[in-house]
Amino acid sequence: MLTNIALDVMGADKAPDPEIRGAILACRTLPVRVCLVGPQERIRPLLHEYLDGERLPIDVVHASERIGMDEKAAHAVRSKRDSSMRVGLRLVREKKVAGFFTAGNTGAGMATAKMVLGALPGVDRPALAVVVPTSAGSPCILLDVGANVDCKPHNLEQFAVMGEMYARSVLKISRPRVGLLSIGEEEGKGNELIAETLPLIKQLPVNFIGNVEGRDIYNGHADVVVCDGFVGNVALKTSEGLTKLVRDMLKASLNTTVTAQVGALLSRKAFNAFKKRLDPSEYGGAPLLGVRGVCIIGHGSSNERAIYNGIRVAAEFAQAGINERIEREFAQRPASPISSNGIGLPLQ
Amino acid sequence: MLTNIALDVMGADKAPDPEIRGAILACRTLPVRVCLVGPQERIRPLLHEYLDGERLPIDVVHASERIGMDEKAAHAVRSKRDSSMRVGLRLVREKKVAGFFTAGNTGAGMATAKMVLGALPGVDRPALAVVVPTSAGSPCILLDVGANVDCKPHNLEQFAVMGEMYARSVLKISRPRVGLLSIGEEEGKGNELIAETLPLIKQLPVNFIGNVEGRDIYNGHADVVVCDGFVGNVALKTSEGLTKLVRDMLKASLNTTVTAQVGALLSRKAFNAFKKRLDPSEYGGAPLLGVRGVCIIGHGSSNERAIYNGIRVAAEFAQAGINERIEREFAQRPASPISSNGIGLPLQ
Repeated sequence: MLTNIALDVMGADKAPDPEIRGAILACRTLPVRVCLVGPQERIRPLLHEYLDGERLPIDVVHASERIGMDEKAAHAVRSKRDSSMRVGLRLVREKKVAGFFTAGNTGAGMATAKMVLGALPGVDRPALAVVVPTSAGSPCILLDVGANVDCKPHNLEQFAVMGEMYARSVLKISRPRVGLLSIGEEEGKGNELIAETLPLIKQLPVNFIGNVEGRDIYNGHADVVVCDGFVGNVALKTSEGLTKLVRDMLKASLNTTVTAQVGALLSRKAFNAFKKRLDPSEYGGAPLLGVRGVCIIGHGSSNERAIYNGIRVAAEFAQAGINERIEREFAQRPASPISSNGIGLPLQ
Repeated sequence: MLTNIALDVMGADKAPDPEIRGAILACRTLPVRVCLVGPQERIRPLLHEYLDGERLPIDVVHASERIGMDEKAAHAVRSKRDSSMRVGLRLVREKKVAGFFTAGNTGAGMATAKMVLGALPGVDRPALAVVVPTSAGSPCILLDVGANVDCKPHNLEQFAVMGEMYARSVLKISRPRVGLLSIGEEEGKGNELIAETLPLIKQLPVNFIGNVEGRDIYNGHADVVVCDGFVGNVALKTSEGLTKLVRDMLKASLNTTVTAQVGALLSRKAFNAFKKRLDPSEYGGAPLLGVRGVCIIGHGSSNERAIYNGIRVAAEFAQAGINERIEREFAQRPASPISSNGIGLPLQ
């Protein structure tokens, strides 16, 4: 049976081209049916052209508005009732599709998903997670990376539970090592939030390895790294900046001498393999954990391949039944001492 | 005239070898006199051997104890009264030298400096700063990276002043662009600390460019990036981890095929140039800003070259008279509403 995934066709910087091509690629090779959400007058001609007579399980659902990359999340959510994001997420809520993927405005995607889908019962704050590569070859999941800027210890505790479940179910890590992001491995190192969170995560039924440091995100010492959304977002964007710096420097160095240019030419294949391994689009984007439904948010620079992977991960997320597990897990746990309705929009 | 710099000979992982060699290199080429601080029975024979009759302005001051890399800062400060760090910093306090460099335990170095030297008048919390390379070719200074984990808006305001002064005086940037590290460039993006800090930095006589993001640390958009010590430390260590990942991946990719191996061989020179540009030791370590004296803390993995650069930067810092300027600046400003004695040890 095919898994139905709704795709925001107006998400990526170069939308709708990478979306339509990515959907075709996914439908050719994965057990999915893709629902393209966006302005049908733009989608249909392109789809017709790219398919060139090929028959694939692709539908089109019309949405007249687009949320821009620089638009404020709160404004976009309030004013654009027929945006491709909102229409796509409504399909998830109405169970017409099993999951949703967008390469659009991250803040608007999170805010819309929280409003349209709501939080899972027992979840106080949904969290945005990213999956990054490590020196050990295995992936590492970092959360929260931007959904919640001012967190309470109890929020971080829930992030640990949700991240661990995602690592087990989608990344297929049998006993994920969970670390709390701090500035030293010893207990007692860190700020007040960390000191208060540590005992909470300690008593969870997860493989908790204690405090970890920034470098542990990439060295393979942890499978799940938990932090508040401010710290996680800084870590993620610092990584983006550094990756770009490394590429720029490497390019400049390799262009310095003729010998080096020859060398670069010869090792181009190796470089491409390397770039692919470091490319976050291989991991299909960031899952928003803790909402009632599957929502994955990709990078604005997503190409056809990244869209393909986003669709793949959304389908795997849905198939793994993580949300049902999270719901069960939190139903068994005592209610939060600082409970809320769980769908408050973020500050920004 | 030579600038006197005290060097902790027992700092680096491979101490005292890189220290003694680095000091010799510095004295050969820079207008400095280096005071080697550590166990004289170990220093003298090595110095004699490496100098091989050469006459250089190098002194030895005995210190019997060494603070280990894994030792707790608070314990090291309390119990080891004759440590090479403490003796070296005492020389600064007594004005026998103009500055101090150590490649030892960062936490212990900060705690010892704060205790022995104290804070400059008007400075509530000294801050540890690092200088990193950027895509634009210019360096960027990031502070605080670990001296203060729970900061008040007023602390960040002072970091902005001190960082700007260091960028102008030591990095020779004429009108440094100062940014506040947050998770979005628009005002209003960020957590409570950022929202409260923004108006404070706005009214400073510095070239404030507003909120910046993690990626701006490396892309050359800012010359000074201000954050609390927890966030700064995570950003720095995340960068360390990612740099190592990139090296590992690149190495693995380049070893995959014979062609790539030939390519790697041919471009080795370019790689070395690249590695050198990315190497933090080229920037001589992290200055501790806001204490009464010059204290630079280098990486434990420091080699001869890194020690040389540490000595160089300590001398430049002293020559630039930054502390006198910071003192003047804070004397002209109204006292802090949440003033303290300024020498409280950090939590960890």
